[in-house]
Amino acid sequence: MPQPRHVQVIEGAPGLVIDTGFTAAVDGAGASDPRIAHAIPRFLAQLTRETGIFVRSTPVPAATHVALLVTVQHPDHAAPQRLGDDEAYKLTLTEKQARLTASTPLGVLRGLQTLLQLVGPGKQGFAIPAVEIDDAPRFAWRGLSLDVARHFIPVADVERTLDGMSAVKLNVLHWHLSDDQGFRVESKIFPKLQRIASEGQYYTQAQIRDVVAYARDRGIRVVPEIDMPGHATAMLAAYPELGSGAGPYQIIHEFGIFTPVMDPTRESTYTFVDKLIGEIAALFPDQYFHIGGDEVKSDEWEANDAIQRFMTIHHIEDGHALQAFFNRRVQKIVAQHHKVPVGWEEVLDASLPKALVVESWHGQDSLAAAAKQGFRGILAHGYYLDLMQPAAEHYAVDPMTGATSELSAAEQQRVLGGEAAMWEELATPHNLDMKLWPRLAAIAERFWSPQDVSNIDSMYRRLDATSRWLESYGLRHNEIPREMQERLAGPQPAAPLRIFASTLEPVKEYTRTDKVGGYTTSTPLNRLVDSVPPESDAARAFARDVDRFLNGASDGARVMQQLQRWSDNVPRVRPVLESNKLLLEAVPVADSERTLCEAGLRAVEVLRQNDLAARDVLKRSSASVDQAAESTKAEVVIAIAPPIQRLVKAAMAGSNE
Amino acid sequence: MPQPRHVQVIEGAPGLVIDTGFTAAVDGAGASDPRIAHAIPRFLAQLTRETGIFVRSTPVPAATHVALLVTVQHPDHAAPQRLGDDEAYKLTLTEKQARLTASTPLGVLRGLQTLLQLVGPGKQGFAIPAVEIDDAPRFAWRGLSLDVARHFIPVADVERTLDGMSAVKLNVLHWHLSDDQGFRVESKIFPKLQRIASEGQYYTQAQIRDVVAYARDRGIRVVPEIDMPGHATAMLAAYPELGSGAGPYQIIHEFGIFTPVMDPTRESTYTFVDKLIGEIAALFPDQYFHIGGDEVKSDEWEANDAIQRFMTIHHIEDGHALQAFFNRRVQKIVAQHHKVPVGWEEVLDASLPKALVVESWHGQDSLAAAAKQGFRGILAHGYYLDLMQPAAEHYAVDPMTGATSELSAAEQQRVLGGEAAMWEELATPHNLDMKLWPRLAAIAERFWSPQDVSNIDSMYRRLDATSRWLESYGLRHNEIPREMQERLAGPQPAAPLRIFASTLEPVKEYTRTDKVGGYTTSTPLNRLVDSVPPESDAARAFARDVDRFLNGASDGARVMQQLQRWSDNVPRVRPVLESNKLLLEAVPVADSERTLCEAGLRAVEVLRQNDLAARDVLKRSSASVDQAAESTKAEVVIAIAPPIQRLVKAAMAGSNE
Repeated sequence: MPQPRHVQVIEGAPGLVIDTGFTAAVDGAGASDPRIAHAIPRFLAQLTRETGIFVRSTPVPAATHVALLVTVQHPDHAAPQRLGDDEAYKLTLTEKQARLTASTPLGVLRGLQTLLQLVGPGKQGFAIPAVEIDDAPRFAWRGLSLDVARHFIPVADVERTLDGMSAVKLNVLHWHLSDDQGFRVESKIFPKLQRIASEGQYYTQAQIRDVVAYARDRGIRVVPEIDMPGHATAMLAAYPELGSGAGPYQIIHEFGIFTPVMDPTRESTYTFVDKLIGEIAALFPDQYFHIGGDEVKSDEWEANDAIQRFMTIHHIEDGHALQAFFNRRVQKIVAQHHKVPVGWEEVLDASLPKALVVESWHGQDSLAAAAKQGFRGILAHGYYLDLMQPAAEHYAVDPMTGATSELSAAEQQRVLGGEAAMWEELATPHNLDMKLWPRLAAIAERFWSPQDVSNIDSMYRRLDATSRWLESYGLRHNEIPREMQERLAGPQPAAPLRIFASTLEPVKEYTRTDKVGGYTTSTPLNRLVDSVPPESDAARAFARDVDRFLNGASDGARVMQQLQRWSDNVPRVRPVLESNKLLLEAVPVADSERTLCEAGLRAVEVLRQNDLAARDVLKRSSASVDQAAESTKAEVVIAIAPPIQRLVKAAMAGSNE
Repeated sequence: MPQPRHVQVIEGAPGLVIDTGFTAAVDGAGASDPRIAHAIPRFLAQLTRETGIFVRSTPVPAATHVALLVTVQHPDHAAPQRLGDDEAYKLTLTEKQARLTASTPLGVLRGLQTLLQLVGPGKQGFAIPAVEIDDAPRFAWRGLSLDVARHFIPVADVERTLDGMSAVKLNVLHWHLSDDQGFRVESKIFPKLQRIASEGQYYTQAQIRDVVAYARDRGIRVVPEIDMPGHATAMLAAYPELGSGAGPYQIIHEFGIFTPVMDPTRESTYTFVDKLIGEIAALFPDQYFHIGGDEVKSDEWEANDAIQRFMTIHHIEDGHALQAFFNRRVQKIVAQHHKVPVGWEEVLDASLPKALVVESWHGQDSLAAAAKQGFRGILAHGYYLDLMQPAAEHYAVDPMTGATSELSAAEQQRVLGGEAAMWEELATPHNLDMKLWPRLAAIAERFWSPQDVSNIDSMYRRLDATSRWLESYGLRHNEIPREMQERLAGPQPAAPLRIFASTLEPVKEYTRTDKVGGYTTSTPLNRLVDSVPPESDAARAFARDVDRFLNGASDGARVMQQLQRWSDNVPRVRPVLESNKLLLEAVPVADSERTLCEAGLRAVEVLRQNDLAARDVLKRSSASVDQAAESTKAEVVIAIAPPIQRLVKAAMAGSNE
C-alpha cells in the first residue's frame, strides 16, 4: 500500500529468503548520490527491525550474487527535489536476487519501501515473494498538511511522521507553521515572533534545517505555510502594528475563525511580509511557499476608516477584493524570493498571476474553477483527518471526480494531486500517531495508485497489514489507545474498558470543538473519547458479519456471540466507569450499549426462529433502540449501533422469514 | 515502588487534584542547583504525559498557593555525584499542596519520582492521595550492570534505560564497555580500538559525555568497566601485542569463556593500560572504575615460556596469583588516575589494597569473605536478568542473607548494595526493554526499601502498576511481545498466537546459549521464544487460581474456564504455527499444551465430582502429562504446566475428596 501500478506475482516461484547473509549493492550512474548513500543503510536497518535478522548494515560492492542490487540510472539534478521529479521504479524478484531499478534516486526511495512492505514470514522464514513490479505515481503532489500552531508538535514527532509518510510514498509535508494560536519558527529579524507569538514553543532555524534535510533524505519536499492575512493573531500579538484593528492583540487559545487580520493598506505591512518571507524562504529550499489566505474576516477592515478610505480610492469593492489586492502584493514578494505561491481556495481570483497553486478545501468545484482559469490546484477537501471519519470515506474521495472529471485534458493536467490535512485542535504530540495512522495510508494510496484501485474490502485488508507494518517505523497509533485506556482504568481492570472502548468512536466532524465547545489549547485530552481511534475495527468487522447474516450467507452465530460478549461486558465495565471522574460520563453510553446489544440479540432470534413474541417485544423497544443509537454522550458514538439497527429493522420487517 | 521507608496514608482526606492550573515552585538554599532546574520541567512534562493534562512546564516563584512546593535545603557539593550522597526526602500531601523537602537536590529527584507514581485517576479526576512519606534508601549502591559488548546498545536505548532506572530510584549504571565481542568506546590514543575492536559499533567520546550528563541529571552515577585481563579478546584483536598468546586475535562472535588473555608480565601492557584508563577515566567523572577481572583462563599463560619464567622469578605460584599481580599493578594505575577500582569477585586477593570494591557474582559468600578481609562489596549474584527468572526469585535474594548476615556490624557496613546485571548474549536494542522491565523494578525495591518489605503478592500487585507506569517513560516492554507476535503471525490471525504465547516462557538460565548452543552475535532473535517475556503473567494468575481451588477457597470454575480456553486455542493456533518456518518448531509445544490442559480439566472434574473413572484415565495419562510438562522444544517452557501438574497430582491422590 499504495498498490503499485503493475504487479505480477510469479505463481509458485520461491521467494527471496532473508537471512544474515543478506547484502545490498548499488550500481548505475546515480549510485554515489548522497540520498542513496543514506537510504541503503536505512533500508538495511529497517529490514533488521522488521525481521529481527541482523543483516549487514552497509552496502557491498555491486556483484551478481548480492541479495539486492539497486540500479540508479541517473544522478540527481542539482536543485532541491522538485514537483514532478521522476518517482518511477521497477522491481524484479527471484529466489536469487531482488533487482530494483529506477531512473532517479527518488525512484529508488519509493522502490525500497515497496520491498520492505513485501517482506513477510512464510514457509522459508522471512522472505520476499517472487514478483515483478512496475510502478509510478498517479499524482505528483501527495501531501500532508500538518498544523503545528494549535498544538505544537516537537521535531522528533514531526520526523516520526515523515518516516511514516515516506513509507507510504507521500512526498510533500505542508507545514502549517502559523495561526491564531501560535507562530512556530524562530525569526532573527522579528524575534518577538518566537518570544511572544510562540509562547516558547517554536522550531529553531537549525531544527527547521534538520527537518528539511530529514525529509529530503526520504524523498519529501517541505512547503512552509505562513497563514496571512487572517489566522495571524499570534503574529499580531507580537507586532500589533501589522493589524487592522486598534490592538493590542492576544494569542488566541480557543478555536474558530477570529476577526484579527493584517492591514493590507499599509506599506509597512509589505515591508514586514517581504523580510519575513525572505527569511523563511531561505530556510526552505522547496520551490513552493504557502501563503494561507483562508477564512479571512472583514470586520476589522470595515471598522477601520483609513482602510475604508484606501478601498474607496483604489476602487476596491469588498473584503474579497481587498484580499486579492493583498495576495497580488504577497505573490509578487513570494516571486521575488524565487518561490511559487500556494494558497487556500479563498485566494482564487482571476486577477492573480497563473503561477499560483490553489488548495481546495471546500471541494472539487473550486479545483475545477481554478483549473479552468489556468491555475494549478491540489485537493484537500475530503481528506481532513481531524474529522474522525473512517478511512473508506477519505478513500472514496478522488481529485478527479465531480467537477474536475468534466475538465479538458489540458485542464486536468493542472490538478497536481492532493493533501491530507491534520488540524490540531484536538491533536497533540501524545495522540498524533493515532489521529494520522493508519488512515493516512489509505489517502496516500488514493494519491499514488491508479484511479481504479478503489475496492474498499481490499483497501481495508491491506490497511490492516500496513498498520502493523508502520509500527516497525516506531509509529504508536496502535499503542496509544491501549496506553490511554490503561491509564484511565488506573487500578481497575483495563480489559472491560478496552472491550467497551473498542465499540466506540469519537463524535464526527466539528461536533466537539463547535457544538460541544469549550475547548482551548490547554484542555486536557485524556478522556475516554480521546482514547478511541477515529475508526472502530471491531465495529467494522461486526458490520460485515451482520451483512453476511442478513444476506443469508451465515447463520448469525458469530453475530450473537459478539453481541453477547459486548452485552456481558457492560456490568463489568460499569464499576470501572464509576471508579473515576474521567470515565463517569460514559456510564450512560455503556447502558445504551447494553440496550442495543440486547435488542440486537433479540433481533437475531426473531430472524433465526421467526419468534413472533420476540418481535413484539422488539417493536415495543424500537424507540429506545433508536435513542441509544443516537447517543453522543461523553462525545462518543456507539459504532456498533448502525449494524444493530439494521438487524432490528430487518427483524421488525420480517424480511428474513 | 520501591516502597518508601515510611508511608502514612491520611484516610478519608481528599487528595491533591491535578488540573491545568497545577504549578510547581522551588525554594531553599539549593533551589538554583542545575539538576533541580532540569528536573522540575522534566517532572512537569512527565506529569502531562501521565495524565494528559497540560500543566505549565516551567516553575513559578515560590508561594504558598502553588500545587507543588519543593524545598531543597542545601546546594549540591561541587564534586560529581558520590557514593553515599544523601538521597532522603519527605513528602507531605494535602488537598491544597504537595510539599517535597530534601536536604539535597538528589533527594528531590527521588521524591519527584515518588510523586509521579502516586498520581492516579479517581473520584476527583487525576489526583495524588493525601499521604505523608519519609523515605531514604537502604543501600547506597543500587546499580544496573549493562553489557553493551555482546550486542551494542545505541545511546537512545541507554538513555531510555536511564529514564527507567531513575523512575525506580536506581543510582548506578555500571557500563560494561568491553568484552571478547567488542570494545565500545572511541579512543583517541588507541584508535584501533574503535576501528578494529568495535566493528563500527561504539560510542564517541561526545556521546559518552552526553550519557554521563543525562545520567547525572537523573541522579545516576556511571561507572565504566574495561574488562581485563580476560574477556578482552576484542582489544587483543586490535592490539595483539598485549596478548599472552602468539596472535593474531579475532573478535569473538560466539559466547562463553575464551582463552585469550593479556600478558601481565610485560611492562608495555601496563603502559597501554595506564594510557587507556587515563583516557577513559577522564570521560567518566565518577570516582569508581571497574576493571573487570572475571573468568580469566590460564591456558595462554601456561603455554607461554616467557610468562612461565617470569612467574618462577617472581615466585608467582599460579594463574590466580598472576592475576593478583596484574590487579595490584592495575589498581595502582587506577589510583593514580584518582579512581577507586571495582572488580568481579575473582579479583579478591588479600594482597590488594582495601580500597577495592568487590562485585560478587557467585553469591553472598564471596561478599562476606571480602567484607571480613576489609574490602567493600556489592552483590550481583541473584540479580542476573538474562537468566529469565521470575521477578519473585530475584526479589527473594537479599545482600544481607546467608553469609553476610553473620558479619559484624562493622563488616556489614562494607556491603554497599547490589547490581542487577543484563548480559547481552540474547538481548539487543530491539528487545532490551522486555528483558529489563518490569523485573528490574522489583530488584530496585530490594536495594532501596527496608529488608522486611518482602511480601511477594504485594510486590507483584505493585509491580503490575509500576510496569504500566513505566510505559509513560517510553519503555516498550509490554509492547515488544505483541509486536513480535504480530510479526510472526504475518498474514495469519495474531490472537491465537498471543493467547498461546501468553502461557509460555523462555527456557531458563544458560540453556539457550550453553545447552542448545549455536548462538552468535548475529543469530536472529526473532522466534517465538524471543517474543515471550521472561515471566508469564497469565501463568502466575492461573497458578494462584489453582492454589485457591486446591485450598478449597474456590469451586474451580475459573480454573476450568482458563484450561478450556487454552485447550480450545490449540487447534486455532496450529495453522498459524504451521504457516511459517519460524513458528513450525512450536507445533509440538502446542500439542503438549493441549495434553496438559485436557489432563488439567480432567483433574478438576475428578476433584469436584470424585469421578473415579476419570481418575483412572488420568492415571493412565500421567506419564504423558509429565513428558508434556518437561517440554523445552522451541526453547520455551510451558509456564502453566507446574500448576496443572499440581492439579493432576492432587486428583490422583484424591486429596480433595
